[in-house]
Amino acid sequence: MKRIMLTVAYDGTDYCGWQIQPTGLSVEEVLNRALTRLLGEDIRVLGTSRTDSGVHSLGNLCVFDSDTRIPPEKICFALNERLPDDIVILRSEEVPADFHPRKCDSIKTYEYTVWHSRLPNPIERRTSYFFYMRLDVARMRKAAAYLVGEHDFKSFCSARTQVESTVRHVTCLEIREDGPRIVFHIEGTGFLYNMVRIIVGTLLRVGTGLWEPQRVLQILEARDRQAAGPKVPPQGLVLKEIRLYPEGYPAQLQGGEDDE
Amino acid sequence: MKRIMLTVAYDGTDYCGWQIQPTGLSVEEVLNRALTRLLGEDIRVLGTSRTDSGVHSLGNLCVFDSDTRIPPEKICFALNERLPDDIVILRSEEVPADFHPRKCDSIKTYEYTVWHSRLPNPIERRTSYFFYMRLDVARMRKAAAYLVGEHDFKSFCSARTQVESTVRHVTCLEIREDGPRIVFHIEGTGFLYNMVRIIVGTLLRVGTGLWEPQRVLQILEARDRQAAGPKVPPQGLVLKEIRLYPEGYPAQLQGGEDDE
Repeated sequence: MKRIMLTVAYDGTDYCGWQIQPTGLSVEEVLNRALTRLLGEDIRVLGTSRTDSGVHSLGNLCVFDSDTRIPPEKICFALNERLPDDIVILRSEEVPADFHPRKCDSIKTYEYTVWHSRLPNPIERRTSYFFYMRLDVARMRKAAAYLVGEHDFKSFCSARTQVESTVRHVTCLEIREDGPRIVFHIEGTGFLYNMVRIIVGTLLRVGTGLWEPQRVLQILEARDRQAAGPKVPPQGLVLKEIRLYPEGYPAQLQGGEDDE
Repeated sequence: MKRIMLTVAYDGTDYCGWQIQPTGLSVEEVLNRALTRLLGEDIRVLGTSRTDSGVHSLGNLCVFDSDTRIPPEKICFALNERLPDDIVILRSEEVPADFHPRKCDSIKTYEYTVWHSRLPNPIERRTSYFFYMRLDVARMRKAAAYLVGEHDFKSFCSARTQVESTVRHVTCLEIREDGPRIVFHIEGTGFLYNMVRIIVGTLLRVGTGLWEPQRVLQILEARDRQAAGPKVPPQGLVLKEIRLYPEGYPAQLQGGEDDE
């Protein structure tokens, strides 16, 4: 019996998210079916990030156990032939039998793209959030700086699941501007439910001038979802990468529920 | 009676192309219906570039005549409310009654995106062509240089329509590399049917090492479609812009059938 880890990319537009739901087709379900058919065993993958409906991925991770004789690094190619165009396995590899990416220290990278223009771009509509109000990127950068570091992000969490702690460590939060495309690049040791989308919604309120950059400090202190800005829609969000630190390096990292 | 010009952006994935066809829904047909409903007149737009099925646009142009009292520059907003998400009017403006962009000298800009990686990217699959073979961009640039200028591009034209002349002027052909994204940026006074896609298919043959860069010169001389490389698929292609020179400036430009 081998444990195999997959790196999974998907266009989330037509899925109800990563996790199996009664309401629609999930990425997890499509993977389970394709693996079960390919390997002739009843496979159930264990995922890492439960991305929401409409959220995309270029680096979600999952593991499963199998007796297959297909070389682990070849499984991605065989599996891709059985998957729809909007899901691609970028990598398959053997990991230790007790290994699970959710239990590892990790840094996750998300990017949220805003299409900032007078009119929407139909070619980018599935992968960005159209926003036509005037934005001051320098103001948003100032506000973003307050969020970097270890903080209690309770205000930036949709009240869905009960988690033990709402303290998370944001290791990087950069805002990149390329013409009408504004990309919020955020890295951290874990994210609460909808945390990235609420952070972006809050920064956009600062960018329009509605809120002062300093307001972010009060929002953190409030520990109240009502204090923060709205959650922006899912199509702008991509889980870019999950970097694992299986041996606990760097030491200050804390794992955590990840539920964008 | 006013003549109105529209700048039309669309995601071409779900259309049979710009032009009305018996085989499927076209962008032209959707525009005619929406304009007819909005203005209460029987509107038939006159297009400029008949983009193929699956090809995208950020700057196609069309004109129509109307008695409407809606200010010309506001028509785009009213029309966008009646259009599906994958078609957006970026601009509407009044032009002289006898004006037609097809009759103007113009420079058209197309971009073709190749996703050059070992495995496809599901998020980019609708807007790029996945190509996994090794590519030498320097070789492709060398070959591309031979195509800039005024040439007979008969070898780079799918035999569909009879056109008077197959001489066209390519004013710019650059290849931009950004990680796995390779963008072929091409500008010219007019393009033959499938010309951009056959040029890219030919340059990819040079990039893989199958053909020498100099071979492009022989292909031009052959004036035979069989001499050139294959036509790459439509989803990588975007009509970016049509710059009009209504007064015939610059003088050396020649209009022409444009039919990508």
